[in-house]
Amino acid sequence: MRRTALPVVLALSALLAGCATAVRGTGDMGVVVERAAGRIQVVETSGMTRLATIDGFGDLSHASVVFARDGRYAYVFGRDGGLTRVDLLNAKVTHRTIQAGNSIGGAITQDGRVVAAQNYEPGGIRLFDAATLEPLADIPAIGPDGRRSKVVGLADLPGKRLAASLFEAGEIWIIDVADPRHPKVTKLPAGKQPYDGLVTPDGRWYLAGLFGEDGLALVDLWQSPPAARHVLSGYGRGSAPLPVYKMPHLRGWAMAQGKAWLPAIGRHEVLIADTANGWQEAGRVEVAGQPVFVMAQPDGRQVWVNFAFPNNETVQVIDTATRKVVRTLKPCRGVLHMEFTPKGEAVWLSCRDDNRVVVYDTTSYEPLATLPADHPSGIFFTSRAQRFGM
Amino acid sequence: MRRTALPVVLALSALLAGCATAVRGTGDMGVVVERAAGRIQVVETSGMTRLATIDGFGDLSHASVVFARDGRYAYVFGRDGGLTRVDLLNAKVTHRTIQAGNSIGGAITQDGRVVAAQNYEPGGIRLFDAATLEPLADIPAIGPDGRRSKVVGLADLPGKRLAASLFEAGEIWIIDVADPRHPKVTKLPAGKQPYDGLVTPDGRWYLAGLFGEDGLALVDLWQSPPAARHVLSGYGRGSAPLPVYKMPHLRGWAMAQGKAWLPAIGRHEVLIADTANGWQEAGRVEVAGQPVFVMAQPDGRQVWVNFAFPNNETVQVIDTATRKVVRTLKPCRGVLHMEFTPKGEAVWLSCRDDNRVVVYDTTSYEPLATLPADHPSGIFFTSRAQRFGM
Repeated sequence: MRRTALPVVLALSALLAGCATAVRGTGDMGVVVERAAGRIQVVETSGMTRLATIDGFGDLSHASVVFARDGRYAYVFGRDGGLTRVDLLNAKVTHRTIQAGNSIGGAITQDGRVVAAQNYEPGGIRLFDAATLEPLADIPAIGPDGRRSKVVGLADLPGKRLAASLFEAGEIWIIDVADPRHPKVTKLPAGKQPYDGLVTPDGRWYLAGLFGEDGLALVDLWQSPPAARHVLSGYGRGSAPLPVYKMPHLRGWAMAQGKAWLPAIGRHEVLIADTANGWQEAGRVEVAGQPVFVMAQPDGRQVWVNFAFPNNETVQVIDTATRKVVRTLKPCRGVLHMEFTPKGEAVWLSCRDDNRVVVYDTTSYEPLATLPADHPSGIFFTSRAQRFGM
Repeated sequence: MRRTALPVVLALSALLAGCATAVRGTGDMGVVVERAAGRIQVVETSGMTRLATIDGFGDLSHASVVFARDGRYAYVFGRDGGLTRVDLLNAKVTHRTIQAGNSIGGAITQDGRVVAAQNYEPGGIRLFDAATLEPLADIPAIGPDGRRSKVVGLADLPGKRLAASLFEAGEIWIIDVADPRHPKVTKLPAGKQPYDGLVTPDGRWYLAGLFGEDGLALVDLWQSPPAARHVLSGYGRGSAPLPVYKMPHLRGWAMAQGKAWLPAIGRHEVLIADTANGWQEAGRVEVAGQPVFVMAQPDGRQVWVNFAFPNNETVQVIDTATRKVVRTLKPCRGVLHMEFTPKGEAVWLSCRDDNRVVVYDTTSYEPLATLPADHPSGIFFTSRAQRFGM
């Protein structure tokens, strides 16, 4: 008896342990990227704890993450072209492919069935089955002159579509992926050198920042047929009179109360554009440095702003009703990214140079928790699965 | 050996079976209420299947459901005052209490820690610990004349607050539950007999329909101190010239592109109000019957409308850009409720009189799946955990 019972008991314990760690809701889970270590942490926002650490992701500089519609699987896009599907519940990699030489992120379609990667090298978009990472389609980003472009600003849209921008070709592409083995591309001239793009949370407006000229390219996706036009002249990189320490992420723009809140390029300002009035500038707010991310709390009442070096130890909070900075925080050194909990009662900040993540209460502005992390960069919560352009 | 091994193997199998069914993401899960049977179905929207059925909920007429922030637990509010916490992964009731004699639904706070029930008898609001259903506070709905009111329109707000309306007292209460054992109540005069209320998805506007007079009571929750004022005169029940077959649910109102789309009372119309312009009426759309629910797809491009008897076999789709009915569907008999998938690629309809739930593709308007259900009423998906007023 003794010799046979022990292995059975051990097996039982192992199964129970596996079972106990894996059975949990995924609505409060997320991922913290440890860039330098090529590693991710699996975290949860109810108790504000780390659940697991997973290695082996390669180059995670500028890494981004999207989530399956069930919240269980994360898709991690590495800079080296690695695309990895992670089971958050079992803290394991289920599938991994090196799908390009140089990649800059990706998206997942409205129905959750297709994962798309946007690549610099070779320039294009590749589509994969979300369950298996089986390749479904390769869409080379070939411009009017027959040459390949780098692809930026990839975003999922309502109607099982994607939008993306082609840097060298100066085009915005809208891609219908209802049949993902036979995607249909609509090409719009956009302007010189779009360097990033975003879609508003309602899926109506796609914007691309232009590196090669002033202003932004705007597409009203409700218009038929869609067309790109220029807005916010004077905003673009082309006329920026100040040195730019870090190009802002367009994905960091915030929509609140029908206005877009966006980081001015090279200036210590957040700009406000009125979406109901042709995206004209509607005001500016002076801030503590060159803004990088300008992110709205889920209720849109406040936007939180972090900054480029040498002000990257500061975070400011703007009240969108009064358009005033209502709080200046110094949470830590090297604040790289911010992520709100799904209903915004807390915000998580990655502190690269202090090797930690700090969580703040958005009502009291008091710190709630600190989690150790090795040079953390991006923070991504599973609630992104339920939003466009995330 | 034989006598001891068999029980161990059985135990092992049972554990594995329990484990295998329970490990899954919760982001695509939901609940269908089978009203007459006092039963709920646990469903998932990726494969569009029923996962489990759970009995023993008592009177589920007018039942509603909110979800824990992790997506694992559902809180079911029965008409008989029953409040039940269900583990969706293990398909089991974990806690149940009869907390009142007659109840009309509830809410969960922004941080997910407190569940609140709104009661007709005895009139008031009760707060419970979301993890244990331990009672935390009892807030009797006592009006200026010292008498108890029925409570309606309970909604969670940003800043760990709740809002609710008192029918007899004619008041709107804003309740700070940051310390849930000592809630702080702010009382606002609202008008005669508020019968339901809702908060907009951004948490800024709280509206209460008035049974005793024309129009609606509106509170701008960003204003300090908050006050209620009257809007949309001519809308209220008081002046309705047509017989009303079913009072519309205010929770069925839709926000899209800065406009509110709401069911006219007694008329075959959907009204449009401009939130940026004092909530003045901005138009009407003629529809096939007396609207009950007017629900926006997550992207706001379309609103779907169902109707009171004798038009409750019809569903219409309005394009919010052109303000025209673009599709009239006859999906089944007795369409009681509609719920969109988190990103809106599909909508689930409960067909009470045909004993089924049907799922439609929102792009093609084609049916995707049919699930058997015993007189289904409400359908609720876990993505509600991530939204205000849901």
